[in-house]
Amino acid sequence: MQPKPNVAHLPVYQPGKPVEDVKRELGLTEVIKLASNENPFGASPKAKEAISKEVANISIYPDGAAVELTAAVARHHDVHPDQVIFGAGSDEIILMIARAYLRPGDETVMAASTFPQYKHNAEIENAVIVEVPLRDGTHDLPAMLDKVTDRTRVVWVCNPNNPTGTIVTQNELETFLAAVPASVMVVLDEAYCEYIDDPTYPDGLEVLKRYPNVVVLRTFSKIYGLASLRVGYGIGQPDVIRAINQVREPFNTSRFGQAAALAALEDQAFVEECRRINKEGLRTLKEAFDRLGLVSFPAYGNFIMVDTQRPAAEVFDALLRKGIIVRGGHRGYPHHIRITVGSPEQNAKVIEALEAVLQEAKV
Amino acid sequence: MQPKPNVAHLPVYQPGKPVEDVKRELGLTEVIKLASNENPFGASPKAKEAISKEVANISIYPDGAAVELTAAVARHHDVHPDQVIFGAGSDEIILMIARAYLRPGDETVMAASTFPQYKHNAEIENAVIVEVPLRDGTHDLPAMLDKVTDRTRVVWVCNPNNPTGTIVTQNELETFLAAVPASVMVVLDEAYCEYIDDPTYPDGLEVLKRYPNVVVLRTFSKIYGLASLRVGYGIGQPDVIRAINQVREPFNTSRFGQAAALAALEDQAFVEECRRINKEGLRTLKEAFDRLGLVSFPAYGNFIMVDTQRPAAEVFDALLRKGIIVRGGHRGYPHHIRITVGSPEQNAKVIEALEAVLQEAKV
Repeated sequence: MQPKPNVAHLPVYQPGKPVEDVKRELGLTEVIKLASNENPFGASPKAKEAISKEVANISIYPDGAAVELTAAVARHHDVHPDQVIFGAGSDEIILMIARAYLRPGDETVMAASTFPQYKHNAEIENAVIVEVPLRDGTHDLPAMLDKVTDRTRVVWVCNPNNPTGTIVTQNELETFLAAVPASVMVVLDEAYCEYIDDPTYPDGLEVLKRYPNVVVLRTFSKIYGLASLRVGYGIGQPDVIRAINQVREPFNTSRFGQAAALAALEDQAFVEECRRINKEGLRTLKEAFDRLGLVSFPAYGNFIMVDTQRPAAEVFDALLRKGIIVRGGHRGYPHHIRITVGSPEQNAKVIEALEAVLQEAKV
Repeated sequence: MQPKPNVAHLPVYQPGKPVEDVKRELGLTEVIKLASNENPFGASPKAKEAISKEVANISIYPDGAAVELTAAVARHHDVHPDQVIFGAGSDEIILMIARAYLRPGDETVMAASTFPQYKHNAEIENAVIVEVPLRDGTHDLPAMLDKVTDRTRVVWVCNPNNPTGTIVTQNELETFLAAVPASVMVVLDEAYCEYIDDPTYPDGLEVLKRYPNVVVLRTFSKIYGLASLRVGYGIGQPDVIRAINQVREPFNTSRFGQAAALAALEDQAFVEECRRINKEGLRTLKEAFDRLGLVSFPAYGNFIMVDTQRPAAEVFDALLRKGIIVRGGHRGYPHHIRITVGSPEQNAKVIEALEAVLQEAKV
């Protein structure tokens, strides 16, 4: 009783250490986790209220088609409801695209390194993974275009890229899309887009109007602060969304997730405030890195990747002992760590801790 | 840009009518939904409390591996934590088994009619679906065994079967498992097992000790009353669970689902009370059907399927106009409707309404 050969070698997901375990093992009273790009300000109070209200319906299945939330998101983005599909996080939209479109042997093009779920899902489908190295931490779209063949089914563009935090610009994306055959799906993963107000950053929904082969991924896990609830969505042309819908599990999002997302969407003041404070946080971190002589990638989301000039695992461990969890171990970046932008207090603490760690390393 | 050919023909899931829509469209003040085998008594108050507590962590990703819940479920069932995997409902365990084990062209055997997600997921994997008709509404295990070939990878046994509600007995299952090659996975879907105290009903977990090719599916959506939250689980041998884990999405269950399930598991008094009242409800419905001259399948879960002796769609519509939603349209059962066991009050109302509908049809 053997699993598929292309599944047998896949790594089992290793969860990060819970904050409570770190506290206990290291004898710390305070631990700050800046490792998962979560919103340090939680979520809108309206979303929390929506959860409390929904408790009355705990035993009732969710609306599988998420009709109300779909209508609200469609209104918010000025698209037709038939263009929207929800998943348990945008992770599940990635899964559904892979299941609906990738056959064994099909080629799929992605950056290295980028968000790992593109590769993970493509491997499960036994597709041929074509990875194109980042250039200066940024998607190398011309090189990715070169890798598109008549066997290519899906290209994944993570914008901003996770883990490096860099973006491809409107011009770069336009040039790329104009050259990609219409038969190739281009997935624009914009999980962090709400954090960005840079004028060179392309709006996938605007691009989608001209390129029907584009599918845009968005999420309620980041700026909306609903990571606990697993709600993401995809936006594309109705025929594409229909095909993705054909592989959707009947009840793939929870009642609580739908209710909280609906309420969170209505509180754009919360989103705006998070965007403003995050931008300040990015600036604070960048200035600190400059002062410490560390080079970081241009950051646009709610995280920043910095070259610590020594093995990332050592820096990770040293920060952990000081009660700060960051993310290291990114393929191709042995000296880099990725730090989530926290609250002003958290940012001050991670800077202080990093400075101390670098000093200790010098001694 | 075409989806996989084997996906293109799949039906898009059509959601049932929300209670609110039925009320508005038909001008009804009260609508009773006995269509989705939900728990009419909600869930344990402990589960509701757990949700309220979890609101503080709304922006934090769940523990992807559900370590605490896994440990609790393993203790509850006296199995090793490595034998347990969680999904967004047992639906997602079905998805993961299909993704991990079914290659294009592999054969998979199932009853007709049974829970539709086995077929749906197998079709997405482009497996060869081998359907074996029910006999008297019950899995025909000898006929299913006859269909097992050296290309068969997975056999699905829904026990009790949805939609008919019948069970295969310990003896029937033992005979079947003793003859099935060890290289064939046998999935025992026991979503409703907690409702059953019939001594002939096999305990999949006991069977699993002797047949390592068995995987048992359980859920928190039925007797535990957490359908809104999407938490199901699979139990099997560690190597099988490991392979399924390899295709699991990193954060496939929500923080709220995990917390509520953990609390619900601890309230076995609630489960016992639901089991007791459900059994009375089954008896009440069966007696009413007998009185009305209607034949129903032997029912073991929290639902019962009855032959209305006229087109199920007509009975469905007539009941809907009286404010009661049931389930009809089951393939191969044009005259049957499936009714969820409700509260005593709901059961009385559905009986009254059904009697009136049958009377009207005679006039």
